[in-house]
Amino acid sequence: MFGGLATVLDLFGVCVFAVTGALVASRKQMDVFGFALLATVTGIGGGTFRDLVLGRVPVFWVDDPAYLAICVATAVVVFFTAHIPESRFRVLLWFDAVGLSVACVIGANVGLSVGVSPFVAVVMGVITGTCGGIARDLLGGESPLILRKEIYVTAALIGAAIFVGLLRIGATTPVAAGAGFLSCLVIRSLALKYG
Amino acid sequence: MFGGLATVLDLFGVCVFAVTGALVASRKQMDVFGFALLATVTGIGGGTFRDLVLGRVPVFWVDDPAYLAICVATAVVVFFTAHIPESRFRVLLWFDAVGLSVACVIGANVGLSVGVSPFVAVVMGVITGTCGGIARDLLGGESPLILRKEIYVTAALIGAAIFVGLLRIGATTPVAAGAGFLSCLVIRSLALKYG
Amino acid sequence: MFGGLATVLDLFGVCVFAVTGALVASRKQMDVFGFALLATVTGIGGGTFRDLVLGRVPVFWVDDPAYLAICVATAVVVFFTAHIPESRFRVLLWFDAVGLSVACVIGANVGLSVGVSPFVAVVMGVITGTCGGIARDLLGGESPLILRKEIYVTAALIGAAIFVGLLRIGATTPVAAGAGFLSCLVIRSLALKYG
Repeated sequence: MFGGLATVLDLFGVCVFAVTGALVASRKQMDVFGFALLATVTGIGGGTFRDLVLGRVPVFWVDDPAYLAICVATAVVVFFTAHIPESRFRVLLWFDAVGLSVACVIGANVGLSVGVSPFVAVVMGVITGTCGGIARDLLGGESPLILRKEIYVTAALIGAAIFVGLLRIGATTPVAAGAGFLSCLVIRSLALKYG
Repeated sequence: MFGGLATVLDLFGVCVFAVTGALVASRKQMDVFGFALLATVTGIGGGTFRDLVLGRVPVFWVDDPAYLAICVATAVVVFFTAHIPESRFRVLLWFDAVGLSVACVIGANVGLSVGVSPFVAVVMGVITGTCGGIARDLLGGESPLILRKEIYVTAALIGAAIFVGLLRIGATTPVAAGAGFLSCLVIRSLALKYG
Repeated sequence: MFGGLATVLDLFGVCVFAVTGALVASRKQMDVFGFALLATVTGIGGGTFRDLVLGRVPVFWVDDPAYLAICVATAVVVFFTAHIPESRFRVLLWFDAVGLSVACVIGANVGLSVGVSPFVAVVMGVITGTCGGIARDLLGGESPLILRKEIYVTAALIGAAIFVGLLRIGATTPVAAGAGFLSCLVIRSLALKYG
């Protein structure tokens, strides 16, 4: 049952990351294909790199068009609505926080599912959470979010570690996932609010 | 028969991309090994990333030294002649347009050859066409071409889509490839001229 | 016997690269997790890319936690001591030179061990030596070291070529490795001193 829920959450995480990529494209006044490119890179970049290092190839989106489709659709929606928010960067930061929180748990779960050690599973969570945003910032010519003097990698690391740790002491996957997600989101939100 | 022609075109596309990498090295006044590095990264970067996500490993140039050799040879030739063109950046843009047009078709063709869906094959065309140039611009400290307010990703996408679409409705590979190549080149040329 | 020594040297090379990543984090006043991220990316980045293109997946650090552990430990040590050196950048350059010299030999050796041609093995040495530092500089927002008007790629290329060349003419692995390491280190040191 968690399989289906995991897929939904995964698509949701991809979608919120895609929003942040599209918002960077918006800041750069790119055309709609530029929106699609940055949304896609951000949405699936972290999971792509995770799959590559784990040797899960072809990577997840090659055989499942839903991931690419959701990125492109998100880009189109943002393209026609992104002039609305006054401060795109604040919006971007909050979407990015949600994407980070979903991705750190999903990524760690993928790691465990292919049998890596708990330590490496946590690293997979961090990779999945951060690499899409790093690619977005590099391609968009922005100073990488991970370099800001705010708690960022830390939040992903703690979220993934709580998820993996709770599973190890016997928690069910939904409970562990929920706790990992919320830990990351709360830490990152506090950093955004008071950082 | 298209197999042999495809290889020649592929090497040609790698070569023109390698020229653009060497021209960036020239702008940065690097030594000949720097030329070779940037030429190689640009020449084979897109296809490398395509092969990685498709799980075609070792990637194409590991077992065929011709690709690396052509990049290095191109770098050496540009190194000894690049002082000639007055405006290196204009030259770079035109070579890049040709490389993009070849690579978007070759990349989509590779995708189809390993059995991915038409949608993903188009994405492989875009990846093959754009990732080498992205790596070149990131390594060379240039503002990425894809961020310029010009039609760029769009051209690769349309070229790859026309190639895949024509194949689907029964065109022969050379016809589809020619149409895809020309579409991308014309669109990109118009963007360069009037963009 | 060289197997054990190679592992020790490999970990040593990873460690000195990790120091350079942590020093960049220090220049950017990142928190300890930022130190860990940059140290890890720099320490294992080159070998990761090498393994990906060779199809050696999961990549080397997924099944051997020692590599990640040494990066994190290095980051923590530098985090608590990096205020000591007056000029962090000079220190970084020297550590980077040692890491480059180790990695170009290790990387070429990995290439040979999976049966690629000598030419490609040398390229694997260059990739292993340079990609970690490139990732460090991109993520850290620094101008890439490889772009400085100094001999850099050249040193890695010559070190790897001497290693592969000596093996081809019958030298034992330790002799070839020592000669390759020293060639790279001497060339890079001269470039740093007089470049």
